[in-house]
Amino acid sequence: MREVAILGIGQTRVDEHWDKSLRVLAGEAVLSAFQEAGLAGVDALFVGNMMSGSANHQQHLGAYIADWVGMRFASGLRIEAACSSGAAAFRSALMAVASGEVETAVAVGVEKMTDSPSDEITADLATASDADWEAGQGLSFVALNALIMRRYMHEYGWKHDDFAAFSVNAHANGARNPNARFQEPITTTEYQRAPMVADPINLLDASPMGDGAAAVILVPAEALHRNSNQPVVRIVASAAATDTISIQNRRDPLRLKAAEISASRAYAQAGITPNDIDLFELHDAFTIMAALSLEAAGFAELGQAPRLAIEGQICPDGRIPIATMGGLKARGHPVGATGMYQIVELTQQLRQQAGEAQISGVRIGMAQNIGGSGSNIIAHILRAD
Amino acid sequence: MREVAILGIGQTRVDEHWDKSLRVLAGEAVLSAFQEAGLAGVDALFVGNMMSGSANHQQHLGAYIADWVGMRFASGLRIEAACSSGAAAFRSALMAVASGEVETAVAVGVEKMTDSPSDEITADLATASDADWEAGQGLSFVALNALIMRRYMHEYGWKHDDFAAFSVNAHANGARNPNARFQEPITTTEYQRAPMVADPINLLDASPMGDGAAAVILVPAEALHRNSNQPVVRIVASAAATDTISIQNRRDPLRLKAAEISASRAYAQAGITPNDIDLFELHDAFTIMAALSLEAAGFAELGQAPRLAIEGQICPDGRIPIATMGGLKARGHPVGATGMYQIVELTQQLRQQAGEAQISGVRIGMAQNIGGSGSNIIAHILRAD
Repeated sequence: MREVAILGIGQTRVDEHWDKSLRVLAGEAVLSAFQEAGLAGVDALFVGNMMSGSANHQQHLGAYIADWVGMRFASGLRIEAACSSGAAAFRSALMAVASGEVETAVAVGVEKMTDSPSDEITADLATASDADWEAGQGLSFVALNALIMRRYMHEYGWKHDDFAAFSVNAHANGARNPNARFQEPITTTEYQRAPMVADPINLLDASPMGDGAAAVILVPAEALHRNSNQPVVRIVASAAATDTISIQNRRDPLRLKAAEISASRAYAQAGITPNDIDLFELHDAFTIMAALSLEAAGFAELGQAPRLAIEGQICPDGRIPIATMGGLKARGHPVGATGMYQIVELTQQLRQQAGEAQISGVRIGMAQNIGGSGSNIIAHILRAD
Repeated sequence: MREVAILGIGQTRVDEHWDKSLRVLAGEAVLSAFQEAGLAGVDALFVGNMMSGSANHQQHLGAYIADWVGMRFASGLRIEAACSSGAAAFRSALMAVASGEVETAVAVGVEKMTDSPSDEITADLATASDADWEAGQGLSFVALNALIMRRYMHEYGWKHDDFAAFSVNAHANGARNPNARFQEPITTTEYQRAPMVADPINLLDASPMGDGAAAVILVPAEALHRNSNQPVVRIVASAAATDTISIQNRRDPLRLKAAEISASRAYAQAGITPNDIDLFELHDAFTIMAALSLEAAGFAELGQAPRLAIEGQICPDGRIPIATMGGLKARGHPVGATGMYQIVELTQQLRQQAGEAQISGVRIGMAQNIGGSGSNIIAHILRAD
């Protein structure tokens, strides 16, 4: 398959967009990516979205958004893999261009969650877990993660305070990203005093919902003209793996096997090791997920990720910067859009266009998008040159 | 891209499966395809489904079904394109194998609609149209098709009775398919006397909902051992196109432009013309859609498809047999599964394994799956040799 590069990116701020419909949000991101790329349209559209059928009474987003952005008669599909829908759409677009099936593709992740009451959104989110054996028993997503976090603390001896650095880092970075939902730093004391959601997860362990859209245009690397001053960002690895949908069926609920497998496949494709990764946009839907992701992707020993955070190694000047534009915690987690925000932000960083959030000297970055409680995990590695 | 062939097929009967959950239905189809193919699993799973989020409170079907059929750690995605979700999943699986990304893939279409009250399913189906400009105005899917049918009758001078032959043919063929939901032939008089649903569409113009799943395993054609007695079925064309999501925005609501475009792309890929097609599994969700599909795919002049039906040219011994295993009308229309049933049935026909429904001398067949009111149309051409 041929090498693929990013020709344009677009995003809306993550927010409560009361004044913008689903199609307007997606359209803003796509049209802004078209504008940056200097294109009026592309051959194929891939939409990452989880819950528009229930939250917005609108499915069929491939045709719906293709129509809105003026791509009539192009092919258009929606890809759903719960919270990893964004990366799944990106991966599908990548495969379409890499295989030669199309010459240009756009992937857009979009979610509009704030039109619905939060109990309905909580129920929608629970459709990512097992309807019979998890959601049907009353387990919400935050409850599932609370069980995992409690077990992790028990198993490895960490206290709740030891997770503060994940949240503090994310909010500090979000404060430097004009597209983040939350743009205020927080203190450790604020973290400690935040209201409890599902013990031990408090409000500052959990990422916020929101409305947002992010888009990327993909073309064959050989089609790029090198007369631009901007570094070319190539996708050097793409890998996906699933795990049991119910965490109760896993040998060890504290190991994200699908992340271990997809990350190691991605490292092999790119011919690198975790040591070569300069920044890591991980799926910090909850602080515990940031910890498990760092371990599964090879940046910390099992049970030792909080130490990395406490030592500041996850900060912009640390060994492995994470959530560099705020992550899910501060940029926000508009579910089906999140994986695409990760790719857009990685591209901003690798092009040295991340503004105040810029990490210095970055050349290779990884994004890891998680669907369900670790049941679908997709890794991408991007390289600038 | 390399040529791809079908190694195994599986399906459940379309029915009201009160005793089987979504995962059991999908599992039956996938495991039966595995068994036929002599495989225990494949590299990647693509699920076509429209409404499990609302109808079954379960999304994330990639991980969910991969887990259930024992494909842990394989990649798994759900593809949604309203009623064309089945063909969209098949096309995604095809691209994954054709590109070399994976060596083996399974596409499964599944829908479980009878757990919900029919008013909820009607609302779910309406999410395939425009939430603001169609569904939000009270237009259900049958109402949209009724407007199209009324306009067609006005424009071309056909009477309601002139559509009887589509329904009579579908039910006659369904009576020879043990997996069809309705296995009784109907008469023209029964068609004429059927209760009205949305004038001019009556109960025998409309396809029934149902529960069902159908699956296909895809492998590179070169990997097939030719020591079997069974003909090898290759996919020689795959093409998709979208159109405006609202029919009001089309220059001519009686022309399925997305079908014209995707069918002509498919003919070009296969190097054939409509004359070379021996049978055509079209999307007869309503009799009017069968007529428009035949015209858009080049089998009849604009406004003349009912003549083809009246003359018997769509019957098993006619010029272009359609709905050969009952079509959506009699086999049933479990929305996200329908496109996969079309592929499974084409394969049965091309392998000469269609039993009493077998059409003689067939070598090349086309399937056309329609999402929305013609807003997403996907064509596949299969050839046996």
